[in-house]
Formats: sequence, structure tokens, C-alpha cells
Amino acid sequence: MIRRLCVIGVGLIGGSLALALRRAGYCGQIVGAGRDAQHLARAVELGVIDGYDLDPGQAAAGADMVVLAVPMGAMTGVLAAIGGHLAPEAVVTDVGSAKAAVIAAAQEALGALPPGFVPGHPIAGTENSGVEAAFPELFQGRRVILTPTPASSPQAVAAVRAMWEAAGAVVEDMDAAAHDRILAATSHLPHVVAFALVHSLSRMDDDAEVLRYAAGGFRDLTRIAGSDPVMWRDICLTNAPAILESLDRFRADLDELARAIAAGDGPRIETVFREAKRTRDTFRS
Amino acid sequence: MIRRLCVIGVGLIGGSLALALRRAGYCGQIVGAGRDAQHLARAVELGVIDGYDLDPGQAAAGADMVVLAVPMGAMTGVLAAIGGHLAPEAVVTDVGSAKAAVIAAAQEALGALPPGFVPGHPIAGTENSGVEAAFPELFQGRRVILTPTPASSPQAVAAVRAMWEAAGAVVEDMDAAAHDRILAATSHLPHVVAFALVHSLSRMDDDAEVLRYAAGGFRDLTRIAGSDPVMWRDICLTNAPAILESLDRFRADLDELARAIAAGDGPRIETVFREAKRTRDTFRS
Repeated sequence: MIRRLCVIGVGLIGGSLALALRRAGYCGQIVGAGRDAQHLARAVELGVIDGYDLDPGQAAAGADMVVLAVPMGAMTGVLAAIGGHLAPEAVVTDVGSAKAAVIAAAQEALGALPPGFVPGHPIAGTENSGVEAAFPELFQGRRVILTPTPASSPQAVAAVRAMWEAAGAVVEDMDAAAHDRILAATSHLPHVVAFALVHSLSRMDDDAEVLRYAAGGFRDLTRIAGSDPVMWRDICLTNAPAILESLDRFRADLDELARAIAAGDGPRIETVFREAKRTRDTFRS
Repeated sequence: MIRRLCVIGVGLIGGSLALALRRAGYCGQIVGAGRDAQHLARAVELGVIDGYDLDPGQAAAGADMVVLAVPMGAMTGVLAAIGGHLAPEAVVTDVGSAKAAVIAAAQEALGALPPGFVPGHPIAGTENSGVEAAFPELFQGRRVILTPTPASSPQAVAAVRAMWEAAGAVVEDMDAAAHDRILAATSHLPHVVAFALVHSLSRMDDDAEVLRYAAGGFRDLTRIAGSDPVMWRDICLTNAPAILESLDRFRADLDELARAIAAGDGPRIETVFREAKRTRDTFRS
């Protein structure tokens, strides 16, 4: 049980976590923090949080669990702001998509990694953002990866794990570098590709006309290009090495495919498509 | 009304058209043709066709409407096989994804473009294939593009248009080159990208492990990588110039994005993502 939960950044992820924990009866009071008073007032209105403070330090004071659900680019600032205000037994976790960067941010902002700090990442989301898009079932059956630091205390890890399980998630631990590499391949690269694909199409002279003919495949493929540009910019900036590694592998594959198409090399094209289909079909089942 | 419809290639597209026209009461007899007797027998069993002939020439003889629904790579062979068997008033159309190539195939197979030949392309499909996946609503409200040749007679164009309208589609005419360029951008490129993306991921050492962490965005993005490899190989081979043009534009965008990520150029990354999101949001509405 959490006595007082502090959610910094009450958007899709932070808001959905608050809703899930409230519905599970897993926490007493929920206080929000963020930069936009109107947005936070709306979150109170929607029953997501009980109250808020624009100052993250004040919001975090007295909380036994603090969840940082701000964009990656805001992590260092928020960590610095709460550093001096945390209760001694407070547990702090985050939902950032790049774990090495969050750990570096904590080290920079707090001087040293505190025992109560347990980085985490729920692999869940939609292309929508903001508290209006939050819903309590978002984490049901979804994975949450925790990447404890060498300094993280077993009690803090257990508390964060229990919180996510109360929200319906399946929790596992992983090394931060492994997390960053896997997420770069399965989430960050696909988003970069979807953004680039739509962007390249929008550069055609008659793009509006052309888009009228886009069918279901294009719709599905590019849905995630409707995601929040700032959040994804921050992910690209904070997980750059792993994303570039994935991107290089993909570009090499694409270059090879372009060469095969230019050369009319049917067998090579078919082999690549067959291998991809096999992988995709495994994943589907 | 069609008296006798001949569908060569009774798969998802050919089968769905037969089902739609039958349900609309738009045709008398439906005869199928193809290479696989077992498959065609199954199509009879499912009520998609009334009978079949393994020889496309025999199947087409006596038909007033012949629909070629075979993979792009089989077009020339099928056209050559039916050439000498067509009734004088017969109308022939196809459903191929690359129209310049189909027109070239007809010219090669038949010597000259007959007045009854009207190339067409329904922009509809699923990642499934085969007659088992066919359903009569596939074309409901979907676009069908006809690319009549200079030789196509107005009567033949009208007959093909009326057939697709009876199947529920919205029909329009277009120049073959424009069709090929638009489809390369909105359909062929996205498929090539999805195949390449899954392929590049499958080349990671621990790909099975990695795929366990793929979330909804990846699922949507790569659904079309489950499409038929042979059909898409043929599309790549027959619409190569337009696909390569789209692919080059996309690769240039991707290269630029990789450079921006490597340089930590947040504003540039954000601009590309914002422009893509704007285009995508326009498309969604």
C-alpha cells in the first residue's frame, strides 16, 4: 500500500497509473505536480489526482512513493527540484524510455544514486497524450521493466514492483543497457521510421492528393507518427547510441533491398520478405 | 449484368470480387481458373465459384468478363494463354498493383492492346491471402482505380466500372504512370519498409528475446510484414522505378534524421516529427 503517491507529470502514463492504483485501492492520497495549473486542475476534475502543487519539491514532500512521468528532457530538472524535499524512506521511480540517461540524470541532479531510487519503464502507451487520454486499464497485462541501480535497496525495488503489479502489469528486472538496446529496436526505431515515412510522403508535390489513396496498411504503419513530437525528440536525444545502432542496421537492410529492387533480383527480395514474414508470424502467435 | 464471369486467380481479391458480385446478383455463372486444383475445388466448396478449369484459355472462353487476379509475375503468361480464346465482345480487366507493367505485359502477350482490355486496381486487401480469406465486403467503399489504355473502348471501361460499383467500390480513372507513382508512395514503400524493419530486427543476436518486448506500436507498424512475400516481390519487380524513387526520398529523410540524432540536434528532430504528425493527423481526419 502507498500512503501518499506523488505523480510528477500527470499525462497519459502518470494519469493512467494514478487511476489504476486508485481503482485497486492501493493508495491513499494522490498529489500531482507539473508546469500547467489548468492541466492539473483538469486532472483533479477528472478524479485522477486529489490535489496538486506546481512546485515538484512541495508535491514530493511527505510522499512515500514519487513517480516521475515527465518527458525525458525534463528528468534532470525535476530530480534536482525534488532532491532536498524527499522523506528519508521515500521511494522514487520514473517511467522514462531510456534508462541509462535517467540514471545519469539522477547522478547529476542528486550527486549520488540514492537507495530509494529505482528506474522503471512501463511498455505501454497509445499515440494519444495528456491526462484526457488516461485510463486505468492501460497497464493491464503489459510489461514493466525495472532497471535497479547498484545503489537501489531491495525494499525500494520491492515497493516499485508491488505498485506496478497493483496496476495490473507484469514486472521484470533488467540491466539498463539491455533495456535501452531492446527498446531502441522494438519501439524507438519503429517510431523514427514511421515519422520519417510520413515526412517523406509529405514532401511530395501533390501530397494531399496522394494521401487520398492511402489504404489500411499505410494507416496502421503510420499511426504512431501521430505520437507526441516532443516526447519522441527527447527519447531520440537520450537513447541516441542505441537508436543509431538500430537505425544503422535497418538502413543497411534497406540499402540492400533497394539494390536488389534496382537489379531486379527477385530471389533476394523474396528471401528478405520471407524471413521478415516468418519473424512477424512468430511474433503474432 | 455479367452473364459469365471468369476469375483467373481465385485468392483474396478474386474470391472477394466473386462473392461480392454474386451477393449483388450482378452475375450469372462464375468460373475460376488457377494452377492448383485443390485450391479451386475449395473455392467451389466455399460457394465462391461455380466451377473451374485449370486451363485459363478454356475458362475464359465464352466469358463476357474476365478478371485477372494473379500475382504480377504471372500476368504475361496468363494473358498469352487466354489471348486466342476470348469471345469477340469479351472485356478483360486485372487487379495488378503496377499498371504500366500490366499494360506492357498485355502488349507483349497479345501483340496489340485490344479495345476490350481495361487495366484496373482495387485499393483494398488484408495481410491475409488465399480464397479462405475472401469476403464479399472487401471492396465496400474502397477505391478502384482504372487506367484505360488509348485502345480501351468506352463500352469496356463502362462495363468494368459498373462491375466494381456493383461490388461496392468507388471507381475513378487515372493515368497509369500517376497510379504507379501514388501507389509506390502510399502502399509499396510502406510494405518494403515494414519487411525491412522486421528483417533488421530478426538479425539481432537475441531476436526472439527482443521480440518479447515489442509493444502495440511495433505490432501495428509491422502487421503488413505478414503479407505474401511472392506477391510483394512481384510488385517490387514490376513497379521498380516508382518504388525506387519513393525509397530514395525516404532514405534521404532517414539519413538526415540519423545525422540529427547523432548530432543531438533536438530542434531539427522535433521539426521533422511535428511535420510528420501534422500530415498524419490530416490524413486521420
